[in-house]
Formats: sequence, C-alpha cells, structure tokens
Amino acid sequence: MLRRKFNKLIASSAIPLIVSDMIDMSSSKDGLTILFQGDSITDAGRDRSRYYANHAGGLGDGYVGQIATDLLGQNHDKNLKIYNRGISGHKVYQLADRWEEDCMQLKPDILSILIGVNDFWHMLNGHYDGTAEIYDRDFRALIDRTLRELPDLELIIAEPFCVAGGSAVGSERWVREFPAYQELSKKIAEDYGAAFIPLQSIFEEALQKSDVSYWCPDGVHPSMAGSYIMAEAWLSVLAPMISK
Amino acid sequence: MLRRKFNKLIASSAIPLIVSDMIDMSSSKDGLTILFQGDSITDAGRDRSRYYANHAGGLGDGYVGQIATDLLGQNHDKNLKIYNRGISGHKVYQLADRWEEDCMQLKPDILSILIGVNDFWHMLNGHYDGTAEIYDRDFRALIDRTLRELPDLELIIAEPFCVAGGSAVGSERWVREFPAYQELSKKIAEDYGAAFIPLQSIFEEALQKSDVSYWCPDGVHPSMAGSYIMAEAWLSVLAPMISK
Repeated sequence: MLRRKFNKLIASSAIPLIVSDMIDMSSSKDGLTILFQGDSITDAGRDRSRYYANHAGGLGDGYVGQIATDLLGQNHDKNLKIYNRGISGHKVYQLADRWEEDCMQLKPDILSILIGVNDFWHMLNGHYDGTAEIYDRDFRALIDRTLRELPDLELIIAEPFCVAGGSAVGSERWVREFPAYQELSKKIAEDYGAAFIPLQSIFEEALQKSDVSYWCPDGVHPSMAGSYIMAEAWLSVLAPMISK
Repeated sequence: MLRRKFNKLIASSAIPLIVSDMIDMSSSKDGLTILFQGDSITDAGRDRSRYYANHAGGLGDGYVGQIATDLLGQNHDKNLKIYNRGISGHKVYQLADRWEEDCMQLKPDILSILIGVNDFWHMLNGHYDGTAEIYDRDFRALIDRTLRELPDLELIIAEPFCVAGGSAVGSERWVREFPAYQELSKKIAEDYGAAFIPLQSIFEEALQKSDVSYWCPDGVHPSMAGSYIMAEAWLSVLAPMISK
C-alpha cells in the first residue's frame, strides 16, 4: 500500500545527510495518515484539546512534533495527516481501552507505537500488577485487533528504553528485569513484520558522545536533543518501509 | 566573536541538503547563548513558566522550537543555551519594556528579532496609535541600547510578513501600508550590519507550491509547515554569519 503512496527515495552516502532528507513521497489523492501512539514520551506535553491532524500544539514537544514538522515542511503536496495520541503514564492495556477513538476511527496508514516503560515502571513502584508476560499478551492482542480492521496497515514498533544514569532509573531491577520487555517488543515486531526502532542502542550510542543529562535526564523522558535522535531514527525507518 | 565559537562549515551543492546539515560548530568552553525575541509567531504557545534554556515546552511549537531541536540534536558538545522570549501581541515598545530581564540579563551571543506585524495590525484595528516612523524609531533605540551593553552581539532581524489570502489579512491596507514596515526592518538590518531573513519572499515562494491554508492559514501565524520553512531560512542565515 505504501509503495503506491511513496515513490521516490533520494539517498546518498557521499555526505552525512540526516535521514529526513532522503525521504520524499509521491503525490497521493487519498493522502496518508500517520498515527503515533504511546505514553508520556510520545505525549510530550501535547495539548489534548487540539486533537486535529497536523496541529503543532496537539502534536507535542517531543519526537512526534519534530517528525511532523519535517514531514509536513518537506511534503506540501502529499496531504499528510499526522496525529499524536500518546497519553502520559499509559501501559498497553490503557491503549486498548481507548483504541476505538484513538486508533480505529483515525484509520491510520502507518501506526507507530512506543509502549512498555510504564508496564515495567509502574509494577516496580507498586502501582500496577503487570508482568512481562502480560505486556506481551496485551500488545499482541492489540495488534491482532488492529490488523483485523486495518489489514493494510504499516506498523512501526519503537523499543521502550531506559537510559543508564538517569535519576528515575537507579534501581538495579531496571538492569535485571527491563530487558525482558525490550526483547518482547523486538520479538513482536519480528512476528508481525513491523519495522523496529532500537531506541536502547540509539541512546547508548549517544551516551558515548555526551552524558545522560544531555539526552534524557531522568533516564525515561528525552531532552530536546534526545527527541532529535529519536526522530532521526524514526525517519530512517520510514525509508526501508516504503520500498517493501 | 562567533568566528571563535564556530569553526567548521560543511557545505555541498551536489544534493539538496536542508541548510541545518551544513552547520557545525566548534567546541567552546563558554558555550553560546541564542535568544529569540518577538511576538506570537515567536512565542508559539510556549510555556512561559519554563523559562530555562533548552526546555522543549518553554521554546514553543513554532520556528524556534524547530531550530532549537536541530541545533541541540546536532551539536551535543557545544554547550548551547537557547531561549525563547517572544510574547504574543507584542510590538517593539513592549519588547523595550521587558528588555532588561528578557535580553540583557541573558547576555545573548546571537539575538534574533522578529517584530512588526502587531505594530501595524494593532494600529489597523484601533488598538494602538503607532506608525511606521514610531516602529523605526523604537526598533533602532532598542538595538542601540542592546549594543551598548553587548557590543559583540550578532544580530539577526527577521522580516515581519503577511501571507496573501490569509483570513486575518483581508484588508487592502495590508497591501498598501504594511510594506513600509517591512522595508524599515530591512533597512535597519542593513544599517546595523545584521543578518536579514526575507520572510515575505520566502512565504511568497511557498505559495507557488501550496496555498495559504497549508503555510499560514490566517496570513499571520504559520502552520507547522510554515514554521519549517522559517526555521530552514533562519538556519541558512546562521551559516554566512559565522564566517564573518
């Protein structure tokens, strides 16, 4: 489906382009709807009363706003519709609770999901009884349900991450137990043929250049610079997707 | 001064880069402070309680947030400090009223000012007694005052603009009288050796590609796509500035 909607991919390895420069999309009468789903990292302070497509305040101050600005600024003739429906604190089952309005009714062509940090964190701090198995089961059920109604959907799954040294991720249990959730997100992406964004390694690579306070002060919520590297990674994943 | 702080400019005309890719800055122990000043276009819904440098919510959803994300994402080792102090509705004299806290105390290395649309618009709708002459006088006085305390300042002046066809700029007086303000902003930039961003022609060029509703629905406040082309232009102005 996306092959019909995107047709041109400009790439060069001669100089270090940011990946968004390599994305170009063909004209489409139908347009293309992109939906971002997740928790506070996706939400990023968006004004939830601005739920219309392509509204700057409604898309938030995080990676979604950055991606949307790039895509809209570079593709005036593509009738893109970009929505953010991340809600702070949410776990997979809470996405499911609001999936009718916040996914099905929007009929996305591309659905990007970043979820899982709260499925672990809220269990850790005693506010949730979930386990990695429940995360896996709920996440797969959500995707099954989505694909039944939207079989042509292109799916992007972003890995939940925690950045070492952040003020909120000091417990040793993050190191011992959180990787199980991350591996499940990757396995789910593989099983459903979704594009996968390996955010954990992206932040670990960034830590070689500057410390956690620059990229993600509490280890969970990215700074502006952290949002930039997330957006860069997301846009890089869009490119191979569209040549499927 | 900036030559000491920036030292590398990567440019290539071989493929259509966005300009931000061409900007690279040398390490600086001092860091570099960039201040954006103006009205609602600069303000862009920023959370004014987040007045610290580099805070996503505090930088707003407009061109400033976009520029900051690019600069911070691409220059982790430069100790950049980026502030937005635009306030919706403001005219030049209102910048002057708050200049001590909102410019002098921040000691910017680079000051970017986009002001003037309200100096005309509020006169037009009967809420202000100003004229183009007052705009000119107040603007020059503000810059003189700034340069007395900050003689090494690099100044960027962005042209106030109105996009034809927008819902708020229907009066024929915009066509007849607003260009005087725009010409003054350009003349002031020339007289002070400031970099100038010709936003009017940038939006007019964009109108060749898509209509006003895509770039700037009311003719005054840019959409996300409009913010993108503003940010692109601003970043392109940074490059020649730094080779002075």
